[in-house]
Amino acid sequence: MNSSIIRFILGNVLKTEAVLLLLPCLVALIYAEPEGLWYLPVAAACFLLGLLMTRRKPANNVFYLKEGCITTALSWIFLSFFGCLPFCLTGEIPAFTDALFETISGFTTTGASILNNVEALSHCSLFWRSFTHWVGGMGVLVFLLAIVPMSGGSNINLMRAESPGPSVGKLVPKVRYTARFLYMIYLGMTVTEIVLLLLGRMPLFDAICTGFGTAGTGGFGIKNDSIAGYSPYLQWVVTIFMILFGINFNAYYLIIFGKIKRALKIEEIRYYLLIILVSVGIIFINILHTCANAFNALTQSAFQVASIITTTGFSTTDFNAWDTNCKVVLVMLMFVGACAGSTGGGIKVSRFVILFKTVRKEFASYIHPKSIKIVQMDDKPIEHEVVRTVNVYIITFIVLFVLSVFLISFDGTDLITGFTAVAATINNIGPGLEMVGPAENFSFFSPFAKYVLMFDMLAGRLELFPLLLLFHPSIWKDLFAYKKSMRSIKKLQS
Amino acid sequence: MNSSIIRFILGNVLKTEAVLLLLPCLVALIYAEPEGLWYLPVAAACFLLGLLMTRRKPANNVFYLKEGCITTALSWIFLSFFGCLPFCLTGEIPAFTDALFETISGFTTTGASILNNVEALSHCSLFWRSFTHWVGGMGVLVFLLAIVPMSGGSNINLMRAESPGPSVGKLVPKVRYTARFLYMIYLGMTVTEIVLLLLGRMPLFDAICTGFGTAGTGGFGIKNDSIAGYSPYLQWVVTIFMILFGINFNAYYLIIFGKIKRALKIEEIRYYLLIILVSVGIIFINILHTCANAFNALTQSAFQVASIITTTGFSTTDFNAWDTNCKVVLVMLMFVGACAGSTGGGIKVSRFVILFKTVRKEFASYIHPKSIKIVQMDDKPIEHEVVRTVNVYIITFIVLFVLSVFLISFDGTDLITGFTAVAATINNIGPGLEMVGPAENFSFFSPFAKYVLMFDMLAGRLELFPLLLLFHPSIWKDLFAYKKSMRSIKKLQS
Repeated sequence: MNSSIIRFILGNVLKTEAVLLLLPCLVALIYAEPEGLWYLPVAAACFLLGLLMTRRKPANNVFYLKEGCITTALSWIFLSFFGCLPFCLTGEIPAFTDALFETISGFTTTGASILNNVEALSHCSLFWRSFTHWVGGMGVLVFLLAIVPMSGGSNINLMRAESPGPSVGKLVPKVRYTARFLYMIYLGMTVTEIVLLLLGRMPLFDAICTGFGTAGTGGFGIKNDSIAGYSPYLQWVVTIFMILFGINFNAYYLIIFGKIKRALKIEEIRYYLLIILVSVGIIFINILHTCANAFNALTQSAFQVASIITTTGFSTTDFNAWDTNCKVVLVMLMFVGACAGSTGGGIKVSRFVILFKTVRKEFASYIHPKSIKIVQMDDKPIEHEVVRTVNVYIITFIVLFVLSVFLISFDGTDLITGFTAVAATINNIGPGLEMVGPAENFSFFSPFAKYVLMFDMLAGRLELFPLLLLFHPSIWKDLFAYKKSMRSIKKLQS
Repeated sequence: MNSSIIRFILGNVLKTEAVLLLLPCLVALIYAEPEGLWYLPVAAACFLLGLLMTRRKPANNVFYLKEGCITTALSWIFLSFFGCLPFCLTGEIPAFTDALFETISGFTTTGASILNNVEALSHCSLFWRSFTHWVGGMGVLVFLLAIVPMSGGSNINLMRAESPGPSVGKLVPKVRYTARFLYMIYLGMTVTEIVLLLLGRMPLFDAICTGFGTAGTGGFGIKNDSIAGYSPYLQWVVTIFMILFGINFNAYYLIIFGKIKRALKIEEIRYYLLIILVSVGIIFINILHTCANAFNALTQSAFQVASIITTTGFSTTDFNAWDTNCKVVLVMLMFVGACAGSTGGGIKVSRFVILFKTVRKEFASYIHPKSIKIVQMDDKPIEHEVVRTVNVYIITFIVLFVLSVFLISFDGTDLITGFTAVAATINNIGPGLEMVGPAENFSFFSPFAKYVLMFDMLAGRLELFPLLLLFHPSIWKDLFAYKKSMRSIKKLQS
């Protein structure tokens, strides 16, 4: 394995984080907060370490899927480790485990918090917390790809490892331009939302943080009651933007280039909107009698459905108090997740569409054994390879899910808390039900359970394989074998 | 579709049921119970209808998987419908829905009951209730295949549709002899268990009913406290026989013919025993402090683990009161289920083994993209076709599971009750947790929820596809088209 290219990219990631860490310092300057000072030494440490790691250019630029996966997994772990240090240093989240949980929750756009009182945080830390959502939403490696020139076409493997969904296509022939396009759309939509929020008289700081949380489908609120305290107009803006950020970004690319018809024909998006519509309908009917009026019921049901299916995790009401069937709908949505190629998490609508089509084909083959039916999506046949990886994905997901529920069950919480805590973290949502409901938080878990949930958040955001590969023994054997062979080559040369 | 052969087989099923219904009459004679009289008219009705349906031999004996599935699904529905009538007529279960629930629960070897007081039932009805387990365990069509000579080798399709597991092989070249062998092993083991129970001073009637419940991995107890009231010796006999009946019957066939080494090498059985061992270990450690002594803790943990993994559903303690992590283990076992080709339900160990091996292969392909690894089981490569159907099975299972949980959530029970009620019925176990825990029963559900759960029991026992195919519109179109074409052929002939 090519370990020098991994080192090189990790160094660049750290340098990028150093720059990102300067933004909260700026916020601290505006609000004259001493907490901001602690962000500087962390930024400096990141930069120095990054410099050290990128000093020597890698001799070999060849880059396979394996390297892509390992780099991605390690980048996210590095990012989170350094990203959590300011929280510890300022004393706002004194325990390292808690600070790391909050930061991983931020970067993975989960939004599960261990904070009992969010409003006690300084502005700069609130900003950094929400900003991690924005960075994690589109992915830091995609960002790197957009700005750092890297040789070879093989860096599509980096993007593949970081981007959500069963298959990543290039929008334009060059990976670099694809990454740039994605970030431009992302930035444009975030700014639009912030402007619309400002028009609804939301304070600028709130608007920026809420914008970050929506764009990354993260869900960290800066108020203790999340979005509940804002006006219905503001809630609808957030609802609509959550849904928009859950859509496959390919659609926006197509729309920008005038191919609106093709964008509207994307099957995944149609199913995604249909699921939202049906879910809102069911919940609307169920909560109507408990709400002040029909508009209020619609606002609440649409907000919660959009928040859960896009795996954002904002809330405007305590849905843990809803009827069982509403909760069943929400738990189902937790697993469905958003569209592939969006910033949302979950298993992704397209995976379900592919699965349903496979099952339908199977039934048809029982009835007409001799007919050969090809599973199609967007008028193109789905490759057998894609179906297979989707199946493997689901199985791996279930295994990790069940194992996690088992591991955190040693904390002795009730089954629903355990089940939904894992569901809310592995799908990068945020709140679950019962003791991790929207009115509660994750602080009561033991450190062991917290590490399990952190693992789930990272596994969910990176779509399992990159993170799980880290635990494959042959990966480490490969790494050391590479180093050894490099050393012996050098010895021969000298 | 060949509807006349379906009619013919269904007629034979009814005639068989007529004979089976005479057994409770015999029991009633011994105990001088008037309730037994009601079994006679039902038997007579079955016989007459059966006679009517088998009067004309089918013109055409051709029999595809499609016909096999439809015949199987309809047989089980017919069996359950007529089987439940005595309960209604004797007034012991007055409501039809409840009687049907109890009977489907019996035939599908689920063991979920709606009875608040089992001990109030007459001996003949208790016998019939437990006997349905024994009939359903190995399958009534397998029984038919064993005794009724049917032409053509294509009736393997009948057995495929009724027998559990991803793939059904013939033990011997002729399906008829395979079916006979299976029933002989089944009968022999049941008798052995009854004798061992008698040696432990269990009353004969109790021993027979418990034997039926264990052999079919059913779980209907004839006492309100299930097996808790019997001695530890009797509990261990039941534990061991539950585990034995959960083993792939191919192993017994191999052992009988002296191929003990090959039997011991069957991977599924090794994993099955390993899972049992690990689960007993975890639960033993957890409940040790609550039990009188270590032997008692071992008896309890082994009994409950064996009962749940083999999907029998007997109980000797209220495991709903156990710690969360014990309950998580039990819920996991509910889905694992027994071995393929046994009388047990669930998803089956072999399906999981196949899935795990596929996932492992996938990981290997990430690391060594160019290597081709073949997934093997029992030293034979697993055909791609098998892997595909296992995947489709799991997906269909999940869809049906989630849909059922959603549908019964309208009853307003808590999430765990809903979740485990569906898990306990679709996996043919019996008890779940909370309101459907081992100390409770299913009577409180609304009729609608009961029908959903009945559907799940049948779907679980018949491994989804046969029952679901019934709802495919083209099946009914085919049936009518066949009748029409037959009529027009006759018109032409006359």
